[in-house]
Amino acid sequence: MASLNFDHSSIFNNNPLDPEEFRRQGHVMIDFLADYYLNVEKYPVLSQVEPGYLRQRLPESTPYNPEPMETILQDVQEHIIPGLTHWQSPNFFAYFQCTSSTAGFLGEMLSAGFNVVGFNWIASPAATELETIVVDWLGEMLELPKSFLFSGNGGGVLQGTTCEAILCTLVAARDQMLSKIGRDNMRKLVVYGSDQTHIAFQKAAKIAGIHPNNVRAIKTTKSTSFALSPDFLQSEMCKDIEAGLVPLFLCATVGTTSTTAVDPVGALCHVAKDYGMWVHVDGAYAGSACICPEFRHFMDGVEGANSFSLNAHKWFLTTLDCCCLWVKDPSALIKSLSTNPEYLRNKATDSRQVVDYKDWQITLSRKFRALKLWFVLRSYGVANLRNFLRSHVKMAKAFEELVAMDRRFEIVVPRNFAMVCFRVLTKAMGIAMRKPKQSHQNGNAENGHYKVAEEEEEGSSNEVNQKLLESINMSGRVFMTHAVVGNVYAIRFAVGATLVEERHVIMAWKVVQEHATAILIKHQLKASFE
Amino acid sequence: MASLNFDHSSIFNNNPLDPEEFRRQGHVMIDFLADYYLNVEKYPVLSQVEPGYLRQRLPESTPYNPEPMETILQDVQEHIIPGLTHWQSPNFFAYFQCTSSTAGFLGEMLSAGFNVVGFNWIASPAATELETIVVDWLGEMLELPKSFLFSGNGGGVLQGTTCEAILCTLVAARDQMLSKIGRDNMRKLVVYGSDQTHIAFQKAAKIAGIHPNNVRAIKTTKSTSFALSPDFLQSEMCKDIEAGLVPLFLCATVGTTSTTAVDPVGALCHVAKDYGMWVHVDGAYAGSACICPEFRHFMDGVEGANSFSLNAHKWFLTTLDCCCLWVKDPSALIKSLSTNPEYLRNKATDSRQVVDYKDWQITLSRKFRALKLWFVLRSYGVANLRNFLRSHVKMAKAFEELVAMDRRFEIVVPRNFAMVCFRVLTKAMGIAMRKPKQSHQNGNAENGHYKVAEEEEEGSSNEVNQKLLESINMSGRVFMTHAVVGNVYAIRFAVGATLVEERHVIMAWKVVQEHATAILIKHQLKASFE
Repeated sequence: MASLNFDHSSIFNNNPLDPEEFRRQGHVMIDFLADYYLNVEKYPVLSQVEPGYLRQRLPESTPYNPEPMETILQDVQEHIIPGLTHWQSPNFFAYFQCTSSTAGFLGEMLSAGFNVVGFNWIASPAATELETIVVDWLGEMLELPKSFLFSGNGGGVLQGTTCEAILCTLVAARDQMLSKIGRDNMRKLVVYGSDQTHIAFQKAAKIAGIHPNNVRAIKTTKSTSFALSPDFLQSEMCKDIEAGLVPLFLCATVGTTSTTAVDPVGALCHVAKDYGMWVHVDGAYAGSACICPEFRHFMDGVEGANSFSLNAHKWFLTTLDCCCLWVKDPSALIKSLSTNPEYLRNKATDSRQVVDYKDWQITLSRKFRALKLWFVLRSYGVANLRNFLRSHVKMAKAFEELVAMDRRFEIVVPRNFAMVCFRVLTKAMGIAMRKPKQSHQNGNAENGHYKVAEEEEEGSSNEVNQKLLESINMSGRVFMTHAVVGNVYAIRFAVGATLVEERHVIMAWKVVQEHATAILIKHQLKASFE
Repeated sequence: MASLNFDHSSIFNNNPLDPEEFRRQGHVMIDFLADYYLNVEKYPVLSQVEPGYLRQRLPESTPYNPEPMETILQDVQEHIIPGLTHWQSPNFFAYFQCTSSTAGFLGEMLSAGFNVVGFNWIASPAATELETIVVDWLGEMLELPKSFLFSGNGGGVLQGTTCEAILCTLVAARDQMLSKIGRDNMRKLVVYGSDQTHIAFQKAAKIAGIHPNNVRAIKTTKSTSFALSPDFLQSEMCKDIEAGLVPLFLCATVGTTSTTAVDPVGALCHVAKDYGMWVHVDGAYAGSACICPEFRHFMDGVEGANSFSLNAHKWFLTTLDCCCLWVKDPSALIKSLSTNPEYLRNKATDSRQVVDYKDWQITLSRKFRALKLWFVLRSYGVANLRNFLRSHVKMAKAFEELVAMDRRFEIVVPRNFAMVCFRVLTKAMGIAMRKPKQSHQNGNAENGHYKVAEEEEEGSSNEVNQKLLESINMSGRVFMTHAVVGNVYAIRFAVGATLVEERHVIMAWKVVQEHATAILIKHQLKASFE
């Protein structure tokens, strides 16, 4: 027994999870973060560092001896914060927001604190059971058909991101189809989305081994506000079927990334149904808005789909990462994704009375994500959550009105939710269309000439808008991103940071105007010298 | 401008990220968790609830109005904690541990607090840069060959779990091979592991579309302590090549789940090399131990592999989830997993001077995981981290000695790290071998008879050990799990909880002995009545 005679505490001066040291350092960190939120507006929103900045500032290797938390936090302040792009800044209007909230954060803390691994029910029953409950709660708030809820023999699961949700459902659909048409027909499977579908879909198709030639990105146009046309889908599918291919999977979107376009879910499901295709509806961003009765119509027709997902970390205060996925037929997921190694065997699983979520997702290990969603739902309640979303939509609408009042600008596509796509009009700004470096090759043909002039105008306009966005972002005062739709470069102004207030929106518009004016003057000066 | 005249604060009584409310509630949560750690020993380790317990206790739907955090935390105490299996309890000896630490927890908090989405460099340069730095730091601690580090043109990435690491590398290998032999040859690809390889490998193969008939789980035996034999691998590969198939990928393991067996990495790489196979080395559990010079030899030969991974959340204090993956050729990952949608285009990416980690993993969105690993490395330092691991190995060794002293028990396989596989010997316990319900079908043939008797003995022994484990776990005093290797049911005793001390190990052994004695008496009584 000599081997037991060592002093554990002398090896590790303090146990790394000593409760009182945990308490002390935990309070320090809470104050650090509260102060960060107090000051977050003061930092440049988009980080201004140069590539490689951090390697120059940090030591080359792990220290041999421990360092106090205070020293580490000082380094966070001096070296990490300057390298952050501040997603929680109220002046962050880029991409789609990744919203934090006190409740979401506390739920994440509690989950990290318990640090249970809920791969199956027995490994922490509460983790599984709370998850089945909160996905039903949220499903009901969204008025998802009962068939998507546990209470209706469907069910939901919390995953990390939409990429995982799409990959899981695609693999389930793939295996279901291959079991019908034969495993060797993998080469024939075709998947469909639009040219506006999130890139996660293409990535999932790649990972799942769908042949790269069989991934369709059906063209959308301004005439449908960049929504996927059911007719286009049908004709694409017919072509594929004629070529001996097998339509497998459609990814429809409620609220695309570039412009928040909404695909006509009902009509698309109707087309897909005739061919036995799996339809997944990706509501990553806009799904959250559908808890408000006035936005629910955007997902009408979802009852015809096989699965639906939204990212609660985007616009639902739940802190990265939390993607909610509902499926009508959990057994399809389970057939593809289940594994039953001996070392995980247990009575509860054998009894078939429990959900083992490891069979609903890519990974085996999983965090207790349900806590943060439960905290958000309870801490804010249905009424406040709706009002929170509405306040962002209202601010976006106000921004849209500001844009409309300035004749130098236009709204590129109609606003659906809390994101405005706009651009400066170079014509209106009096910026010369002619670009000296290019020659008019088709100058003789009338139509050709017009076309080139138009394209050139668009090209020139795109360049100006790109410059405008760069100059806005480099100011550090706000951060916005862009999209290109129908060859038009648009600036995306997404309202949604938790801390955003109308004063930030007004200020952001002022920043846009100032930078537009500066560019206008520069171009006019340049033109006067030409 | 009328639309801007609403009072944001009246819509949401308080902003959901109001810094002072965040501070107040944050401190409450820290105290809640510190108290949880103080009391964690008092809870039954394995949750004692019945399936469906929670739905009966919680309301049917989301509350319409907000509820105070205090009420929610009371529900956590009353309804969630009883449904937890307490992974942070020092009496948790099941599976492999998922270790927390104050530093890991604080890093997780800070990451959740900043809540940045570092899909590419520009979205938060510090997130990407710190990650490239800490994976190099840890890689050097492991004495990974320079070719796996950024400083040697390889590189590392932090993912969630080993499932993701295997899937990513498998997809990279798959696409690399298909680009050589033609995309239509997917059906021919074969992947190899042993019957001890983690089930994540089979799952990854399924997801990546490898034909189910082409996933090899090569048999291991007790003679090699359940390590994969290079000869067996070679002969399996030769058979496949003769059948016109193409060897693609080998998953070797340092520290298997069932028994912590170590595959001979160098010899396996040598076999694989001749066929151009990708070799991934999965050190999910035992990889961490290799920061100690005395354990480093277990991964000798890794220089011949293409990729290596370990789970820092398992035995490296880093809180779920954090899988470190290193690859020699990041471009293989990037070729398979990169996507470049217009809405993510930016100058830094175009300059090719930066890492965009979205192209190194399955998902696009990603958390700032590097913070917690950086906190752990700095807060404890190389010396303490080694001592931490050594203390667990020492305790496991002590447990092994205790088992060896009791003649009723045997060690099933030699211990490599901090996990002991043991069982009670039914013979030694005097438990009747004869099982009345079964007849001796091969009673006439001498050899047959012996074999059946042996199998029956094993079967009876397995049953007794299963009962013993169930009775131990139902006591709530400790939690262990099992494995079946070479038809033997073994109880796995994994030392590794952060809070574990020698007194817990000694107590666990007493619990085992008590329950074994009780079962022995029960069986003897039963036998005396037969």
